[in-house]
Amino acid sequence: MRREGREVLTIGASDGYGPLKEAILSLLHSEGIPARDEMLLVTNGCQQALDLIAKAFVRSGDTVVLENPTYPGASAVFNRVRAHCIGVPVRTSAEPGSTLGVDLEALESTLAANRVKLLILTPDFQNPTGTSMPLASRRRVLELASRYQVPVVEDHIYARLHAGDERLPCLKQLDRSNLVIHIDSFAKVAFPGLRVGWIVAPAPAIERLRLIKQMTDLHTGQLAQATFAEFLKRGLFQKHLVRMRRIYADRLNALDEALRKTMPEGVRWNRPEGGMCVWLELPPGFDASELMIHARERGVLFAPGRYFYVQSPLPNTLRLGFANLNEKQIGRGVTVIADLLRVEMRKRLRGARRAERTHMALV
Amino acid sequence: MRREGREVLTIGASDGYGPLKEAILSLLHSEGIPARDEMLLVTNGCQQALDLIAKAFVRSGDTVVLENPTYPGASAVFNRVRAHCIGVPVRTSAEPGSTLGVDLEALESTLAANRVKLLILTPDFQNPTGTSMPLASRRRVLELASRYQVPVVEDHIYARLHAGDERLPCLKQLDRSNLVIHIDSFAKVAFPGLRVGWIVAPAPAIERLRLIKQMTDLHTGQLAQATFAEFLKRGLFQKHLVRMRRIYADRLNALDEALRKTMPEGVRWNRPEGGMCVWLELPPGFDASELMIHARERGVLFAPGRYFYVQSPLPNTLRLGFANLNEKQIGRGVTVIADLLRVEMRKRLRGARRAERTHMALV
Repeated sequence: MRREGREVLTIGASDGYGPLKEAILSLLHSEGIPARDEMLLVTNGCQQALDLIAKAFVRSGDTVVLENPTYPGASAVFNRVRAHCIGVPVRTSAEPGSTLGVDLEALESTLAANRVKLLILTPDFQNPTGTSMPLASRRRVLELASRYQVPVVEDHIYARLHAGDERLPCLKQLDRSNLVIHIDSFAKVAFPGLRVGWIVAPAPAIERLRLIKQMTDLHTGQLAQATFAEFLKRGLFQKHLVRMRRIYADRLNALDEALRKTMPEGVRWNRPEGGMCVWLELPPGFDASELMIHARERGVLFAPGRYFYVQSPLPNTLRLGFANLNEKQIGRGVTVIADLLRVEMRKRLRGARRAERTHMALV
Repeated sequence: MRREGREVLTIGASDGYGPLKEAILSLLHSEGIPARDEMLLVTNGCQQALDLIAKAFVRSGDTVVLENPTYPGASAVFNRVRAHCIGVPVRTSAEPGSTLGVDLEALESTLAANRVKLLILTPDFQNPTGTSMPLASRRRVLELASRYQVPVVEDHIYARLHAGDERLPCLKQLDRSNLVIHIDSFAKVAFPGLRVGWIVAPAPAIERLRLIKQMTDLHTGQLAQATFAEFLKRGLFQKHLVRMRRIYADRLNALDEALRKTMPEGVRWNRPEGGMCVWLELPPGFDASELMIHARERGVLFAPGRYFYVQSPLPNTLRLGFANLNEKQIGRGVTVIADLLRVEMRKRLRGARRAERTHMALV
């Protein structure tokens, strides 16, 4: 830092601090993305990446397709520029005839029926469902994007958090049509408070984004950029990633076990292979927002599913985030939720019986 | 830093890092602005402040009034959201019946003739002209803003760079109608590469801006924020400011002397009382962009005036920035420009004589 102080403290380049760009490029190369300097823009994290993309490519009235449910920070950005946002369902369980992740038939008919400006996807460990798209679906999405000539924004922020050894290729790796705008950040592995992320895209798109970035805040703070450059160059990021992956995998296991041990019948959840969250479906008629009120009183927080929907919210869904809790806390939290659900279920059962009796008299 | 590490590195508050907000508030109090926490938002510098303000308050087709000439980063932001930008002339020399700074009569007639959404002003050492508005003009601007109920964005970024001891009260200090949105940054005094600035405005406006900030990039990087918090709390900012003011004042003097010593007759310039630049007017018919080509060949750079105009550019104007050059460099640069101008003037004189002779034969 002493060595580079002068450069870090003075005004910098809009596309990013040179040494950080080099370090990110070599990370990308090691992960199978042969990006060059002119295809890379440093941002203040993924949220700004989305904001810059909206500013650069989306105008009021344009149609943007998102996953449903999706990360609310994404829909907020596109709603703000008054895009017409359409949500395509995400399948959280693989049933016969369908695969995990974004519903490909619904996606195809949406692309066929609308002039879509941008498609926003999180193929790996999607927030909020934790779902990942199988390889075949990824190829199919790219085919569709190419057929309808729709750029795909790939949110890659969770992709390194695979619990097992296998890691599926991302859309950017599979992309032959140069239609993928790949966004990523260090935030889910290290130091979210520093706000550093990046965009990988074809050089002309990056040039447009760079100009927008310049208008937006000149450049990302260089102290944070230089910090990450060192962190990457010294191999500390990779080391830290290995550690975080193990911790997250243990927590995911603990959550799954706790759910299996305590949840009453009728509650369903998926089993993501990594990421930071699990998606729960309560029996029909249950409202996760109401459950939330009672859980909060007992010191347990989760995110009601309706918070994440672009349209047609399912009130009986919720997201459990496990990344920032230890295994004991996870066990306790799940027990509280399961107990509350059981109480509610008994109440409903009694209510239903009473209603049956009453109804019988009135028929 | 070690003490606060945990908090700095994790995700933070959209309105800013607590210790930095406290430090900025006490800076503001010492400068006569009695702001409270809910009236302050930390941004990634003034450029982002402008971007957030445009996002929060300006829609396509809204009229925004700027100074003409103005900082191109400001007009870029409002053009991008497709505002209708109107430039009001800035007077760089006080002639009988007019005062320095934004032309008050033109401003009043613009406000009367348009439904103006926002007025953007830099009352102190305006970029690019270096001009400051006298106290009476500041009061008049606030009267007009109040009469037409137009919020005024005050860019305060250069205000601390006064060469003499006197410092005029800023609009925010004089504001009785709660119409001033005050933006500022450390960048012109220290570490522009860290990208930290702020907005002071009425609490409801700050709350709206905070939500936009959250959508834009969650929050400003906390490593940079914590660095500035320490810098302020230890009194290093004030110490550094005193030093920078003296250095800039010496450079301004050196520039003025060099201009007086070397510039050919017919070239006019103003004598700002601080800031970072001086505004030059070449004789009518001269083009600063052409002059620039020749100056660049001799290793001298300046900014042609046309770059700064919202409308009706004057091609014979240019901005000389003196802040980043020592006195020797300033002297050399001015000499090169003066020599080039003299050569060009002689050429024109010969051309004019020749033209006179030729014309006589053809009459």
